[in-house]
Amino acid sequence: MRIALDGMGGDLAPEATVKGAVLAKREGAEVVIVGNKERILPFLGAEEIEILHTEEAVGMDEAPSYALRRKRGSSMNRALELVKMGYAKGCVTAGNSGAALAFGIFTLGRIEPIDRPAITTLHPNRRGGVTILIDAGGNVDCRPMHLVQFALMGDAFMRCAYKKDNPRIGLLNNGEEETKGNELTSKVHGLLKEMPLNYVGFVEDIYDGKADVVLSDGFVGNVALKISEGIVETFFCFLKEALEKGLRRKIGALLLRDALGELRRKMDFEEIGGAPLLGVDGILIICHGRSGERAIKNAILMAKRYAEEGLLEAMKEALRESKEA
Amino acid sequence: MRIALDGMGGDLAPEATVKGAVLAKREGAEVVIVGNKERILPFLGAEEIEILHTEEAVGMDEAPSYALRRKRGSSMNRALELVKMGYAKGCVTAGNSGAALAFGIFTLGRIEPIDRPAITTLHPNRRGGVTILIDAGGNVDCRPMHLVQFALMGDAFMRCAYKKDNPRIGLLNNGEEETKGNELTSKVHGLLKEMPLNYVGFVEDIYDGKADVVLSDGFVGNVALKISEGIVETFFCFLKEALEKGLRRKIGALLLRDALGELRRKMDFEEIGGAPLLGVDGILIICHGRSGERAIKNAILMAKRYAEEGLLEAMKEALRESKEA
Repeated sequence: MRIALDGMGGDLAPEATVKGAVLAKREGAEVVIVGNKERILPFLGAEEIEILHTEEAVGMDEAPSYALRRKRGSSMNRALELVKMGYAKGCVTAGNSGAALAFGIFTLGRIEPIDRPAITTLHPNRRGGVTILIDAGGNVDCRPMHLVQFALMGDAFMRCAYKKDNPRIGLLNNGEEETKGNELTSKVHGLLKEMPLNYVGFVEDIYDGKADVVLSDGFVGNVALKISEGIVETFFCFLKEALEKGLRRKIGALLLRDALGELRRKMDFEEIGGAPLLGVDGILIICHGRSGERAIKNAILMAKRYAEEGLLEAMKEALRESKEA
Repeated sequence: MRIALDGMGGDLAPEATVKGAVLAKREGAEVVIVGNKERILPFLGAEEIEILHTEEAVGMDEAPSYALRRKRGSSMNRALELVKMGYAKGCVTAGNSGAALAFGIFTLGRIEPIDRPAITTLHPNRRGGVTILIDAGGNVDCRPMHLVQFALMGDAFMRCAYKKDNPRIGLLNNGEEETKGNELTSKVHGLLKEMPLNYVGFVEDIYDGKADVVLSDGFVGNVALKISEGIVETFFCFLKEALEKGLRRKIGALLLRDALGELRRKMDFEEIGGAPLLGVDGILIICHGRSGERAIKNAILMAKRYAEEGLLEAMKEALRESKEA
């Protein structure tokens, strides 16, 4: 099961991407790195990993529409083409996420009946399980039907990738009460009640474990994610300040060093690796732009697992069934 | 400077409200508690605090429109009437925040040129300062001009209440790049660039201290707040788990007990007390529904400080000047 890696995507590429590929290879993944050979080789050392050379790369700040017109030969799109032609079974990129969404749809195509593929992030919850947020950033202005499709995809994904029977679907909202909501969430709330899904209603939290799937439009989902990152960083910043006051605290901090490291990793996107783009006809994992080698490694292993377990075929089948129901 | 307290508002009322009033009195505030005398007296003990009796109270889950029609005699609205008639100089409620917004506008009226008053939350930032989020929950569907008005109010508030010259105004968005944004934020971004404000552009974080004022519509702002609360709770939940593994960690945790308590308080809404409703013609502090006595006390002291410092008059003046500019 070969995984194609966009070697040039991400703030820390190609160093982090290449090192991530090496780590993933050591854990049994077969990787092909797509990108500028001259810039990749110095980080590869003596490791033997296949490289597909490209001259072009998508810039982190480029408009997706521009990339789509002018960067068909980029490392990002070439990596996706390897999936399309069946040479690779999945693709990983930490590049411009808007462009990844655009190229994902353009090159892989959509699966039925999905109009808008959506970036799906995975979060540890307080009940010890995993909750997904869909859409975490792809589609900033959504119509109600798009969120209903996100619900179908989230349901199928949790059944197929996490063996969850009857996943609980929640709608991210400014309150759990029926009277709360904006125009969009009020309409979606009405529609979801009529669907053959385990819809548990409005939710306010991604982390409390009350839902397995949390729905939102891509603007709200993305803001929620970034706010979460900000809070985690703030937390560690304040914690560091607090632990520097006085000898007793410094000793306590030493004793807890590994516990705090554990906690940091648990709250860290790097551990999870990346976010699958659900709704395209192929496995595509989009990583955070700031991804380091550990995040890249984990994203490659994630793509590998999904490919081995036949996630795409299972999701297509589940969506076909939901359409017939 | 008398402060009127809605004695019946909040999940923990009247116990938390009455005890909060007692604590505030001990720190020099003059309070009048509005609510059901029979239910208030048992928590008051031997303390002498004025009570204005009402039979009615607004339910926590009542639709604001219903409250506005049927609950004019509620403790919440009577407390606001005390401000309107000048008997009190500020009002505090931990009741139904939608109803507080509705009664605030209905009873106190708006100040020029504001169409939509907005709930404004205060947050410690990583630079050691305070950042406000406006609107944190009042107006779920906003037009661009409403966010421009929030910017004017936020600017005036930071100048008047926090003596900040030239406050930096940021717009909460799904990315800092010019290409990011949804329909609403893209339009607001264009409008704010033309205003005589210190507009610093799109921001992704409330806590990094890059802006003194963070703007959003009430839906996004409220979701952001609730997500933040969820993350903080998750953090302490995971921390607790991590600190229970093994003797060394348990000893470390003991040594850090006060440091972690300090941190918890720093991240806690209770410390700040409440959120002013900016744009109404009076001082109104809206507290979290789950507010305990410490939050109520802090909100009363916040209202007292704003009243003593002439915040309302200063804001009116600043808004008048911005209109003329």
